[in-house]
Amino acid sequence: MSAELIKGMPIANKIREEIIVEVEKLKTKGINPKLAVLLVGDDEASVVYARSKEKVGDKLGIGVELTVKPADTTEEVVLDIIDQFNADENIHGILVELPLPKAISKENVMARLDPKKDVDGVHPVNRGYLLGGQEDMALIPATPLACVELMTRAGVKIRGKRVALVGRGDTVGRPLASLLIKRDATITICHTKTKDIPAITKAAEIVVVAAGRINLVTGDMLSPGQVVIDAGINAKEGGGITGDVEFEAAEQIVDVITPVPGGVGSLTTTIIMNNLIKAITLQGKA
Amino acid sequence: MSAELIKGMPIANKIREEIIVEVEKLKTKGINPKLAVLLVGDDEASVVYARSKEKVGDKLGIGVELTVKPADTTEEVVLDIIDQFNADENIHGILVELPLPKAISKENVMARLDPKKDVDGVHPVNRGYLLGGQEDMALIPATPLACVELMTRAGVKIRGKRVALVGRGDTVGRPLASLLIKRDATITICHTKTKDIPAITKAAEIVVVAAGRINLVTGDMLSPGQVVIDAGINAKEGGGITGDVEFEAAEQIVDVITPVPGGVGSLTTTIIMNNLIKAITLQGKA
Repeated sequence: MSAELIKGMPIANKIREEIIVEVEKLKTKGINPKLAVLLVGDDEASVVYARSKEKVGDKLGIGVELTVKPADTTEEVVLDIIDQFNADENIHGILVELPLPKAISKENVMARLDPKKDVDGVHPVNRGYLLGGQEDMALIPATPLACVELMTRAGVKIRGKRVALVGRGDTVGRPLASLLIKRDATITICHTKTKDIPAITKAAEIVVVAAGRINLVTGDMLSPGQVVIDAGINAKEGGGITGDVEFEAAEQIVDVITPVPGGVGSLTTTIIMNNLIKAITLQGKA
Repeated sequence: MSAELIKGMPIANKIREEIIVEVEKLKTKGINPKLAVLLVGDDEASVVYARSKEKVGDKLGIGVELTVKPADTTEEVVLDIIDQFNADENIHGILVELPLPKAISKENVMARLDPKKDVDGVHPVNRGYLLGGQEDMALIPATPLACVELMTRAGVKIRGKRVALVGRGDTVGRPLASLLIKRDATITICHTKTKDIPAITKAAEIVVVAAGRINLVTGDMLSPGQVVIDAGINAKEGGGITGDVEFEAAEQIVDVITPVPGGVGSLTTTIIMNNLIKAITLQGKA
């Protein structure tokens, strides 16, 4: 028997409807929500993500201003651009597409953002609110929040559940751990130095994978009855993307699973736009 | 057979020797390390902690300036004091004793500190560095760091070990989770909504308890061969303090355990002073 799929698009559409209502309210107050996207270099996936934000923005009545700079742009120039975005009253959110070229310090760029315009929650202050459980004050990173929104809106109960979280990166794993603890899950965080990951994943009720490695979680690491959330996005040989979970095997075993593509990744741009609305509130403008 | 004890004082003394060397170096550069401690109200334990910082400071050649304000001091006045400390070039570290009186927002006070003078790592920026794994840029909260220093300096290997962390508070549990993940432990975080905590603690190699409840971890929740770190500090009926672990039962079962008093708590003031030295470096003064 095949697992039930949690598809991202229907949930994204539901959130978009909520955003459209908020955008209309803002416009009646004379606020035209605007997101500045900075793309440095020509990373192929980043170009796709940036364009997708423009398209989604169009649908929601949100202005998306894309700034593209060549790969040899200096860190100083990038920081100057951030300063301009920070100072611009008409820009409510800033997103810097990652990865940045190697000569530019990601840490310096993240720390330069106005935390209240940081719609992907990468500034240390937003991460700190997350660690402190002060989610109402934080702009929360899109991918971890997408994982939680998918579960919550699909009716997956998190409270009191044993969750195996595979991955401890600063973009997804660690922020997601904070979100899950706050929602009363009992989480075990697995990573490359963990002994016997299969024993941990098999014993969990929910398995969330955000490791960035194709087929890291195989069918024999899963159990019947589980919910599997796959936050991995990996380029497939020959084109297309795939997740961190061996999907074909997994869907024969578990109860519920998110596909890749079409799962977590389908929600992230929408979450960014939702964060933009929250950012406007945090800026005291709404 | 009784467990081996990890006592805090010998480790604190070792760290103090290192601090004295650093303080001497700073003084030859004309820098006189100084910590400002703000105590609002008359919480009995806080008075003891504040005094203990003065004593330890004396031994290390570190100036400790204690400011005591009555319990009815307004938040505005407290924030003004913080601003003065922030602006004072001769003050390198600021510690606000907790708990604050209820009329004062702990969050507002924490967020007002200059992050580079925040020697107990309570500012969102320092928590954010911790969540992001950027420990070199962070001032790390004393109690979680004390737990890690105790283990590391007592020769307890953390890497690859299964750790049950009991407690998810913003002061100890969550920051400690970040420190342990960074040190390659495989952690499971238990809390009030966790089902069957005993099964999790029994299966761990290291049990760290920071829940703030007397005798929360009883002997039947532990297994032979374990290391137990007790970060709890609870007032005992009739005076004195005790930890979160039922010590008499635990020491008959496990391999290694920290006592309370005399364990984690014996290290925290020393860690604060060590953080003060790090703060001076982060301020670009060393």
